[in-house]
Amino acid sequence: MTPPTTLTQQAPLTDVEIAQAHTLEPIQIIAQRAGLPDNAVIGYGRNKAKIDISQTTTNPQGKLILVTGMSPTPAGEGKSTVLIGLADAIRAQGHSTIVAIREPSLGPVFGIKGGAAGGGYSQIVPMEDINLHFTGDFHAITGANNTLAALIDNHIQHGNSLDIDPRRITWQRCLDVNDRSLRHVITGLGGKAHGTPTETGFSITAASEIMAVLCLATSVEDLETRLANMVVAQSYQGQPITAGDLHAQGALTALLKEALNPNLVQTLGGTPAFVHGGPFANIAHGCNSLIATTTALSYADVVLTEAGFGSDLGAEKFFDIKARAGGLDVAGCVIVATIRSLKYNGGAAKEALTAENIPALAKGIINLEKHVRNVRKFGVEPIIALNLFSSDTAQEQDWMLSWAKEFGVGLYPVTVWANGGDGADNLAQAVLELEQDTPSHSLYDPSEGIEESISTIAQEIYGAHTVQWSKQARADLEYLKAHGWDGLPVCISKTQYSFSDDPTALGAAEGHTVHVRQLLPRIGAGFIVALTGDVMTMPGLPKVPAAEKISVDQGLIKGLF
Amino acid sequence: MTPPTTLTQQAPLTDVEIAQAHTLEPIQIIAQRAGLPDNAVIGYGRNKAKIDISQTTTNPQGKLILVTGMSPTPAGEGKSTVLIGLADAIRAQGHSTIVAIREPSLGPVFGIKGGAAGGGYSQIVPMEDINLHFTGDFHAITGANNTLAALIDNHIQHGNSLDIDPRRITWQRCLDVNDRSLRHVITGLGGKAHGTPTETGFSITAASEIMAVLCLATSVEDLETRLANMVVAQSYQGQPITAGDLHAQGALTALLKEALNPNLVQTLGGTPAFVHGGPFANIAHGCNSLIATTTALSYADVVLTEAGFGSDLGAEKFFDIKARAGGLDVAGCVIVATIRSLKYNGGAAKEALTAENIPALAKGIINLEKHVRNVRKFGVEPIIALNLFSSDTAQEQDWMLSWAKEFGVGLYPVTVWANGGDGADNLAQAVLELEQDTPSHSLYDPSEGIEESISTIAQEIYGAHTVQWSKQARADLEYLKAHGWDGLPVCISKTQYSFSDDPTALGAAEGHTVHVRQLLPRIGAGFIVALTGDVMTMPGLPKVPAAEKISVDQGLIKGLF
Repeated sequence: MTPPTTLTQQAPLTDVEIAQAHTLEPIQIIAQRAGLPDNAVIGYGRNKAKIDISQTTTNPQGKLILVTGMSPTPAGEGKSTVLIGLADAIRAQGHSTIVAIREPSLGPVFGIKGGAAGGGYSQIVPMEDINLHFTGDFHAITGANNTLAALIDNHIQHGNSLDIDPRRITWQRCLDVNDRSLRHVITGLGGKAHGTPTETGFSITAASEIMAVLCLATSVEDLETRLANMVVAQSYQGQPITAGDLHAQGALTALLKEALNPNLVQTLGGTPAFVHGGPFANIAHGCNSLIATTTALSYADVVLTEAGFGSDLGAEKFFDIKARAGGLDVAGCVIVATIRSLKYNGGAAKEALTAENIPALAKGIINLEKHVRNVRKFGVEPIIALNLFSSDTAQEQDWMLSWAKEFGVGLYPVTVWANGGDGADNLAQAVLELEQDTPSHSLYDPSEGIEESISTIAQEIYGAHTVQWSKQARADLEYLKAHGWDGLPVCISKTQYSFSDDPTALGAAEGHTVHVRQLLPRIGAGFIVALTGDVMTMPGLPKVPAAEKISVDQGLIKGLF
Repeated sequence: MTPPTTLTQQAPLTDVEIAQAHTLEPIQIIAQRAGLPDNAVIGYGRNKAKIDISQTTTNPQGKLILVTGMSPTPAGEGKSTVLIGLADAIRAQGHSTIVAIREPSLGPVFGIKGGAAGGGYSQIVPMEDINLHFTGDFHAITGANNTLAALIDNHIQHGNSLDIDPRRITWQRCLDVNDRSLRHVITGLGGKAHGTPTETGFSITAASEIMAVLCLATSVEDLETRLANMVVAQSYQGQPITAGDLHAQGALTALLKEALNPNLVQTLGGTPAFVHGGPFANIAHGCNSLIATTTALSYADVVLTEAGFGSDLGAEKFFDIKARAGGLDVAGCVIVATIRSLKYNGGAAKEALTAENIPALAKGIINLEKHVRNVRKFGVEPIIALNLFSSDTAQEQDWMLSWAKEFGVGLYPVTVWANGGDGADNLAQAVLELEQDTPSHSLYDPSEGIEESISTIAQEIYGAHTVQWSKQARADLEYLKAHGWDGLPVCISKTQYSFSDDPTALGAAEGHTVHVRQLLPRIGAGFIVALTGDVMTMPGLPKVPAAEKISVDQGLIKGLF
């Protein structure tokens, strides 16, 4: 096997330049291609639309393909890029296809990532819009979240008839920005006229409960019910206080009504794409909105959706939270891997990943093997998309093919970055031929209790030996049990870099201890968040943020990757 | 004179019900009516558009009418309602007309006001959209503002090569919410990994410098320059640190590029309306964007624009900040007044305003007299729009007409709430006949220094005897002088309820003392903010916030007024 020659013939263009050079089709044409009714299409700026869910039907019958990844590394694996190229390849083979993926968060765009909507010739466009504000969904969530925070403090200020304990307000504010200085704050200083001093913090919007609620709601009515159920504090008597107790759900629903409608855009190959909802997969549940996925499944033969990061994070949560909530059946799963990232997982230095290194590859392959085994636990046989880079040598690629044969898993090299859909023809063929004898399923039965659910995930998916509970987490568990929430699924916040909760333990950590630090009731979302290790729900910016390189020149955005 | 019978025949509908019952014209038709080129119209959700300023020409030649008000009271005066009805009346008389007003802020929508885009049959639609997110301009400003805050703290975290003094970070975060608990906060707690502890606070987005920058910028390039010039902190050596020093202006411009394009919507009468930019007039400069106004003047014969609150706030800032920055000439000024509010200013109780009370009216009229005299100081002869309510008696209306004759000012009763444009026919006729011998002008020459500028405004417009400077304000002034900013115009933050800085001093306070508490350099906006009295740049919510009554029912928003 030789690397595709086109890989070395890439035009020296950045992603944003490729995207900006592309002539987009009118969004009405894309909507018609998706089979959506004309009256459901609400144009939203140039080449974007919201799909009015009151005008669409729900009858999911398409084939659902889940794309996930090996454990991510600083080298980048191109999961979205592969998903997009694969979708274009499937459509080129004559199948009606819709992509359903998440919206990017502004925090990482201005931090390390500098934008995210695929790459090269497998992108979703208009990429600048998608990366900057898009149709305002994240802002609507931020606004709703912080309006609720203001209503809580205002209730206390005006007499506190609900007896809210200011020391036990669990509702945090949020912003769509990477700002470590907002993790731990004190609000309400300055005296009586300015609120009650409160120790609190901000999460990034992608980790907020309202993001999860929006991504799991099945209708405007369900949205309102979920919002009312959100627990925001405890009373002095230890009773949960909800958004409903504050009569906030109507206002929050009004703020989120448009945001609940999926956003329609297009790939460079002209495939319709729903880009909607954006919870991170480490500190949240990592899947695009259920409404976008079920709407896509109601109109297309094949739907490609993603679960952020690897099988331990996005995919586990896809099966155990999203698929369970929405009754989704996954017909096939693609795991995206790269030779560079496998070498990194095998101990190669970040700076040496372009050099051939079969020993590191052979060592790092355990990471991919564990992801394959994990996916099988949900009743789905995965196939590997090997996303080729020009530095991958023929020997390394041959090694991968041999490994796959021996390990007993399908592996298909793709060159979607350089070639768009043409670079994933074989993978597309394989995906279309996937057949499942039985429906996919979740890993655990939540009714056995949170402790059992966490243990199962930790042992089966993370390869852990033990789960260690902090004193705080133990107390949280008692509170959850006392209020009948012990049977909800669990959404574990964990580093994406390792199967363990230690980001430096690469490869396939085994026999380790998972540290449960805290449990947070997310009753509106319908799950319990378990914080493990040192993972934080508000990222920080790097020393030289991507923001410094982003600019506008002659009306065009520059510096998005 | 008798009250129009239609006033008592009002259908018992709320504003949002009237708006929702109206069939809107396609926004493309509205754009054509405004004379805007088709390729400048970017549809943005149903019945809204952004106007791409790279596709419009700038050649302001229309007649500019400024609508302002008497001092506001809890009774409400209906300034926007009159402006909108007047615009519909002028268009009905055959003149090409565009409205240019501010966008509402979410904070007050969920606080006391419950929405703001006119009222009754003089509204701008779609009112729910305009009141909730609209086209995302406020969110873009919030995002840009808080991204800059994160970049400042991040710079300190990663070595602080600019020597920023964390005690002198003047850049505040902002949110579009009424949240008193965010006025005084400490950020950066939790230890070394989570930033540097900093005493700071949040303003409401409408009071942020970026809001002012967006509203005064003349192009994308000018926007970027202004953003770079914003002063965010001082170094340990006392030198100003700007957003440009942090290389932030490119990213901020990218975030604000679309927000700079004016939003096009329509009145119930089908008049094109630019609703763009929304600084409050008490704690900010109170005028819609300069770009919207100059674009409107380039395409329409008559442009109606507003200045928030009364002649002491919005109008003064319109002439001294916006008109100066944009070279605008005001052809006529309408002051909106109501009998109820005059009685309130004359000492009548809030609960007794529907009862006839000529003595209170005669006492409160001094408020309106002062506003008339104030407007004349800018070289413009105002006329009064008397916005009638059904409780206004014939005797009260007759009294007003006699007063106007005696005082020597035009006065025209209007019934726009009940009758739309038909309720402002006479006012429209009068406005169209307005002629100015000389251009309008500003009140003071900023080059004489901030101290002189504040004294002039305080004495001439507020009727004050003295200006008292706090020690802090004195120190601020020295800092401004040291950096050559003493010649910038001043934007005074002051209560809207009184000509003085004491909100309880109704009527026409005279001989009082204005207390200057603090001066803030807003170098990007191009002015200096002077905080007076106790005015705060972050409002709070009332005991029963409007949020509790807002809801979604069968897909329709309820509870917006």
